[in-house]
Amino acid sequence: MSTKLTLGSKTWFPNIDPIAYEGPDSTNPLAFRHYDAARVVMGKPLGEWMRFAVAYWHSFCGNGGDPFGAPTRPMPWTDAVDPVQRAKDKADAAFEFITKLGAPYYCFHDTDIIDEPGTSLAEFEQRMAAIVPYLKEKQDASGVKLLWGTANLFSNPRFMNGASTNPEFAILARAGGQLKGAIDATIALGGEGYVFWGGREGYLSLLNTDMKREREHFARFLTIARDYARANGFQGKFFIEPKPCEPTKHQYDFDAATVIGFLREFDLLGDFALNIEANHATLAGHTFPHELQVSADAGLLGSVDANRGDVQNGWDTDQFPVDPIELAEAMMIIFQAGGFSNGGINFDAKIRRNSTDPEDLFIAHVAGMDAFARGALAAEKILTGSEIPGMRKARYASFDSGDGKAYEECGLSLEDLHKIAHGQGEITPASGRQELYESIVLRHV
Amino acid sequence: MSTKLTLGSKTWFPNIDPIAYEGPDSTNPLAFRHYDAARVVMGKPLGEWMRFAVAYWHSFCGNGGDPFGAPTRPMPWTDAVDPVQRAKDKADAAFEFITKLGAPYYCFHDTDIIDEPGTSLAEFEQRMAAIVPYLKEKQDASGVKLLWGTANLFSNPRFMNGASTNPEFAILARAGGQLKGAIDATIALGGEGYVFWGGREGYLSLLNTDMKREREHFARFLTIARDYARANGFQGKFFIEPKPCEPTKHQYDFDAATVIGFLREFDLLGDFALNIEANHATLAGHTFPHELQVSADAGLLGSVDANRGDVQNGWDTDQFPVDPIELAEAMMIIFQAGGFSNGGINFDAKIRRNSTDPEDLFIAHVAGMDAFARGALAAEKILTGSEIPGMRKARYASFDSGDGKAYEECGLSLEDLHKIAHGQGEITPASGRQELYESIVLRHV
Amino acid sequence: MSTKLTLGSKTWFPNIDPIAYEGPDSTNPLAFRHYDAARVVMGKPLGEWMRFAVAYWHSFCGNGGDPFGAPTRPMPWTDAVDPVQRAKDKADAAFEFITKLGAPYYCFHDTDIIDEPGTSLAEFEQRMAAIVPYLKEKQDASGVKLLWGTANLFSNPRFMNGASTNPEFAILARAGGQLKGAIDATIALGGEGYVFWGGREGYLSLLNTDMKREREHFARFLTIARDYARANGFQGKFFIEPKPCEPTKHQYDFDAATVIGFLREFDLLGDFALNIEANHATLAGHTFPHELQVSADAGLLGSVDANRGDVQNGWDTDQFPVDPIELAEAMMIIFQAGGFSNGGINFDAKIRRNSTDPEDLFIAHVAGMDAFARGALAAEKILTGSEIPGMRKARYASFDSGDGKAYEECGLSLEDLHKIAHGQGEITPASGRQELYESIVLRHV
Amino acid sequence: MSTKLTLGSKTWFPNIDPIAYEGPDSTNPLAFRHYDAARVVMGKPLGEWMRFAVAYWHSFCGNGGDPFGAPTRPMPWTDAVDPVQRAKDKADAAFEFITKLGAPYYCFHDTDIIDEPGTSLAEFEQRMAAIVPYLKEKQDASGVKLLWGTANLFSNPRFMNGASTNPEFAILARAGGQLKGAIDATIALGGEGYVFWGGREGYLSLLNTDMKREREHFARFLTIARDYARANGFQGKFFIEPKPCEPTKHQYDFDAATVIGFLREFDLLGDFALNIEANHATLAGHTFPHELQVSADAGLLGSVDANRGDVQNGWDTDQFPVDPIELAEAMMIIFQAGGFSNGGINFDAKIRRNSTDPEDLFIAHVAGMDAFARGALAAEKILTGSEIPGMRKARYASFDSGDGKAYEECGLSLEDLHKIAHGQGEITPASGRQELYESIVLRHV
Repeated sequence: MSTKLTLGSKTWFPNIDPIAYEGPDSTNPLAFRHYDAARVVMGKPLGEWMRFAVAYWHSFCGNGGDPFGAPTRPMPWTDAVDPVQRAKDKADAAFEFITKLGAPYYCFHDTDIIDEPGTSLAEFEQRMAAIVPYLKEKQDASGVKLLWGTANLFSNPRFMNGASTNPEFAILARAGGQLKGAIDATIALGGEGYVFWGGREGYLSLLNTDMKREREHFARFLTIARDYARANGFQGKFFIEPKPCEPTKHQYDFDAATVIGFLREFDLLGDFALNIEANHATLAGHTFPHELQVSADAGLLGSVDANRGDVQNGWDTDQFPVDPIELAEAMMIIFQAGGFSNGGINFDAKIRRNSTDPEDLFIAHVAGMDAFARGALAAEKILTGSEIPGMRKARYASFDSGDGKAYEECGLSLEDLHKIAHGQGEITPASGRQELYESIVLRHV
Repeated sequence: MSTKLTLGSKTWFPNIDPIAYEGPDSTNPLAFRHYDAARVVMGKPLGEWMRFAVAYWHSFCGNGGDPFGAPTRPMPWTDAVDPVQRAKDKADAAFEFITKLGAPYYCFHDTDIIDEPGTSLAEFEQRMAAIVPYLKEKQDASGVKLLWGTANLFSNPRFMNGASTNPEFAILARAGGQLKGAIDATIALGGEGYVFWGGREGYLSLLNTDMKREREHFARFLTIARDYARANGFQGKFFIEPKPCEPTKHQYDFDAATVIGFLREFDLLGDFALNIEANHATLAGHTFPHELQVSADAGLLGSVDANRGDVQNGWDTDQFPVDPIELAEAMMIIFQAGGFSNGGINFDAKIRRNSTDPEDLFIAHVAGMDAFARGALAAEKILTGSEIPGMRKARYASFDSGDGKAYEECGLSLEDLHKIAHGQGEITPASGRQELYESIVLRHV
Repeated sequence: MSTKLTLGSKTWFPNIDPIAYEGPDSTNPLAFRHYDAARVVMGKPLGEWMRFAVAYWHSFCGNGGDPFGAPTRPMPWTDAVDPVQRAKDKADAAFEFITKLGAPYYCFHDTDIIDEPGTSLAEFEQRMAAIVPYLKEKQDASGVKLLWGTANLFSNPRFMNGASTNPEFAILARAGGQLKGAIDATIALGGEGYVFWGGREGYLSLLNTDMKREREHFARFLTIARDYARANGFQGKFFIEPKPCEPTKHQYDFDAATVIGFLREFDLLGDFALNIEANHATLAGHTFPHELQVSADAGLLGSVDANRGDVQNGWDTDQFPVDPIELAEAMMIIFQAGGFSNGGINFDAKIRRNSTDPEDLFIAHVAGMDAFARGALAAEKILTGSEIPGMRKARYASFDSGDGKAYEECGLSLEDLHKIAHGQGEITPASGRQELYESIVLRHV
Repeated sequence: MSTKLTLGSKTWFPNIDPIAYEGPDSTNPLAFRHYDAARVVMGKPLGEWMRFAVAYWHSFCGNGGDPFGAPTRPMPWTDAVDPVQRAKDKADAAFEFITKLGAPYYCFHDTDIIDEPGTSLAEFEQRMAAIVPYLKEKQDASGVKLLWGTANLFSNPRFMNGASTNPEFAILARAGGQLKGAIDATIALGGEGYVFWGGREGYLSLLNTDMKREREHFARFLTIARDYARANGFQGKFFIEPKPCEPTKHQYDFDAATVIGFLREFDLLGDFALNIEANHATLAGHTFPHELQVSADAGLLGSVDANRGDVQNGWDTDQFPVDPIELAEAMMIIFQAGGFSNGGINFDAKIRRNSTDPEDLFIAHVAGMDAFARGALAAEKILTGSEIPGMRKARYASFDSGDGKAYEECGLSLEDLHKIAHGQGEITPASGRQELYESIVLRHV
């Protein structure tokens, strides 16, 4: 799992040394206090559980621009005029960052790794053909692996009305053409997963939308993508990433339950799993642990996009995760689900627009990885050393035998329940003891 | 569809005459300005489309209490000491109100029609046995019908941890016992539907909850309820009413998509449909039209709980509906879905805590029915006389023939799309023209 | 108030004719159905009440880009290479649009009317010196007037930590330098107001912020701006535009009450009033009418930024206003406050990213102006012909004489109230009759 | 500051021993792990900083009822038939709880300490006269003190339209009569503060409301209350507790900034300060630290109502505080403001409806006090041992001398800024380093 510092022809983060684990007493914001990849937790090295990935888009393409202002961030790797050279410089910067950070994985959209030319698909494919082998070299040199790839089918103006849910077939076809290239690149780079994030697969206005038809087109798109990838040797998982809205008013992949229902409706359960993003969970009115649990209960917890939203601001702020309580609860669920197979923890998070020091990006990732590690260590203690697992199991004990068990095994009818109800006295319900559960969690974080 | 004024032994709303249709120029808040039940709209009398129902709980049981204050509302029909007499007085008041209003239907929870005694199920069943025939008489005398019945499995303290999702089997059994009685009453009164609203079927804390097991218990509960009702002659529909939260932190019936996924997962699609409530839609982060459309697209638009929330207040305010634009969009969807078969439009709405004049309840219902009628009249004009249906159809025309049609019919692979993409030039996407659509809607409301 | 069609050397909206009033039966989306500027409403021509303004930024600078995608909108007036020519083309397009629409006013930020050069303030001032006289010519030729001007002190990266609340004095000084130019331009063009919108005057993190010091700097900035403008002949009003957040996590001008408190604290009440934006009101947890009423009650209702938000989406969607009920309630408040003196109704609204037909911008403005006009016509009927004003006055009648009046006139102590309370029997409070009020409003819209 | 275990004639919490400090390694949920009252923090014993108070209403009156269900909680102290005996039993239970917990203060509404009789003010005053001396005895015996008192002017139906903002003078007078009694009781019991929480001082509908007149009545009410209390020897502070809504749609005390503006407008700044509640802050769209900072910056940070809301649920959930990061940030502000003089930290928090074990109330308070103590210990480390105070100070250093200082001291005009701007080169703004600040906070929590 360990990676090797991999620089390009020049250094893009000259003043930053590789990040080391220094332990809880360290006061160095450029060192890990909790994340010790080799430490065995719940029977496996922490690094193997976490499978941290760096997101190409936020970290190497995000320029600090927002709807009210121009870019703020110094990004010297974007200065070259030649697009392929620019892409290689970016790759060099990315792999320097990733290997200094010590993350074992990265993730990208096709348009992250090389800029799209004007409108020609052929030209874009030529560019992709130039950069993919270069990334392969960087991967080989560093040991860094591709967690997942994806296609950006939402930024180009042609996709303003959606890609696979576009009312115009020609644009859907164009999206398919581009999708093929992104799948090809993911396969070529050994990606363990392929993500669909439904950017503009939704609607801005229901008045002009045939939602039923759009959803069917969407399902068809996923189906042929799956068929193509499987036919071309892709062994990994496809991930759908729920998000309720933004940029569209409503996205079809609203939340985990919606996506699971969709996959079941269109018979896609076998090949697809979910990529749960914390900020998307909260935008949908759920907690991050809730969305993880819904996915885990369905056997579909595939991967995680790690970040956090801002409780007071109603858009996708994509801040780095920091909350140790939330992350302990998240890691409890991830551990109980057996961890990730093809997925991992990808930092779909960005530094604030006014965080313009080169070290800010390192500090943010270090703190985020540490926050997850701290959550993992607490989760282990709660699961293996606290009263919580037993208390929760005992709460449902009446279904483990007798009539309760018969009920679970479909052996009781409504009339049976009616008879039982008449035969029993009034039952005083047991306290839910929520404050005690919370107190125990707090004790371990 | 017309009903007959039906009073009890005394008059409970002495100063209110039956509500008449007086037309758009009326300034009488106790007359309909838009709701003319006999008027033919979209080929059928408006009354037959709307199937308005009055909710027993808000209108005859709701006392104006809130978490910060005591009851405010004069409710003389609750004064009798004997519970059966009290229930009959309430029924008299209810049927006087319903027949003065001219609504063809009503809806109830079992505990609305008669008060629960202490803890004995047998005693409650005796009370039910006393009131159900009385309601039957009132129905027969008035022509008012039961749209749907339901059981209140959330108010009693025994259900504080849920009913069918309670961690204790004994409480689940008690819930089943009570459910049987509510189904029996619904059948006896010729109810066209039976509603499940998942009051406390959810969780307050994920920490103490086995969500997977609870959801499975819930599905089982619905299954045996369905089996029992079918075996006992119930021909109507079962409705599930989505709501995201309140009173629990999270309700398993979060929204329409979640419920549809649940019904599909547990093989309940045939007998169940959805009862969409406007305020629950907005609490879930959706519009009311969205939830209707999701249900209609799945062929599951069963019934409507008419009300509205308050955009600034984050709880279930259950105000009467007033917004003619929202209701026009809602009626467009309802008309296009063919209207209701077993369902209707039930006013799950309450007058404000400080609306304490007896006429306030009438004014609120009249305005609500008028607002829906106005929406229906506008929807008819939009669907039959405006550019919108054609514009929307044209937007998807590329899927009606050629490659687009082949795509819909599963005739194209990803490689096919890739080839098409290479063969076509850049497509300038068409304007979504949202402002034009909105302008046309406004023109008709 | 009437303006004259004013084209530049070429036509930018060749297929659009000047918008005419065609009356309620028109089905032409490019005609007014309600907005008849000459119609006398509440004793004054509608046009004089409304004082509609077109916003330069959204309509002529906004390109359809969003955080997830590139520009979508055809904007041929931005093609010229020379910045001054580009600015003149934009002015030509703007005045063509404004005069075809028939709006009497426009509004701008300094950086809207001409692009900022690299970093030199001197060079920007030269550009401003080139475009301001050209705008003066256009104004004179058309009769269109400047409602208000403002400085964009938030888009340039230098302002990423705020302008007048920036922790670095040098940046505050730069902001002051730019502000002077915007005030000069506003005076030169006869602007009736000058707006401060607190773009990044707030914080992203409280941890690194000295809020007290920043607010004091902000107050000082407003003070010296006022002093400068007054010394240089500005007779109009300064407007502060409340907004709770976005782009910053928290903006100091959170809402109307906050701004009024700020103006009072720093002794700025005389020269400043409020510019209330509908979408900002809802982001702050208020209704648009609430914010108008708060401002009006303080004698500070200065101007309006007309738009609407999306109830389900938590960011500043700036959609065009359409809701006739909300706008009727808004116009009731505006009428009762005596209308605008220096302010007006500025469309701070943008067409959707996928509204790319040139006519979409016209349709949106026409519908928005019509929606406000419809609201105004309804408001007149409610205020002059309905029971509402009398009902509301009667509700407070007990304070118009006797003890109630004595209380209002500071003539009663707590002991007096205590004595009165003992002397009176229990009072049954009167119904608030909210549903009746709502019913009456609905009857008139 | 230490209190003495004080039981009544019987024990109400028989299985609970007094709570002790056992240190961070304790696994006993009925022991403090962080709250060591005697430990000196920031130069003063922790107990003196925190001044914890128990809220009578939630802890001894709250029965677990909610809008969807009946009471759930066993409350044996409410069983006595005689109202005075019932009140004494409740007082006994309360003081047993408070002294077992070791909290030095309590808080109440008048109607918490004894039930209101029907409608007679005289009879209520007689009841108050019976219970206040009993509470005095309990205080004297235990050493527990009254942090603040208040009057419940919102639960009784007579106040359904408000108390001091009621449209009917007679009801306002009744509120004044009751208020006098609550002030008298607070004085008699040595209360250090008197709180106004604006329950129904707001509106449900703007349509029927004269907001200006209501606010003026409210200000007058506060004024005469202040005058009465001062004339009768009250030396403490009056606190206003902001809340944006619930139970009313809009409360006039929306947030800290609104209240401060109100106090300044009506010349009440000298005697009044703010009581900041965490859950009310978040309902208003603010963080808890934000509201504390706004109050502290105005010199008006008076007291704290400790609790938390639920981010996904939009009503006042009043859960016990648990988040150590939020509380560390809160305590940083409280420490920097010099702590409380008349106020303290009152647990305006309730156990969940399904937390029905007697020990749940203890566990919740212990965890809440511990969470605050943990926040305090972290805050001390951050303020005295971390880089944050210095980093923040340095960020504003340009205002500590030279032109920046001149600006702060009102020595620069807009023309001066303009000149400075021209004389300086472009300034690259400094990184806000938010992620570093957050990383440092995390290191200490």
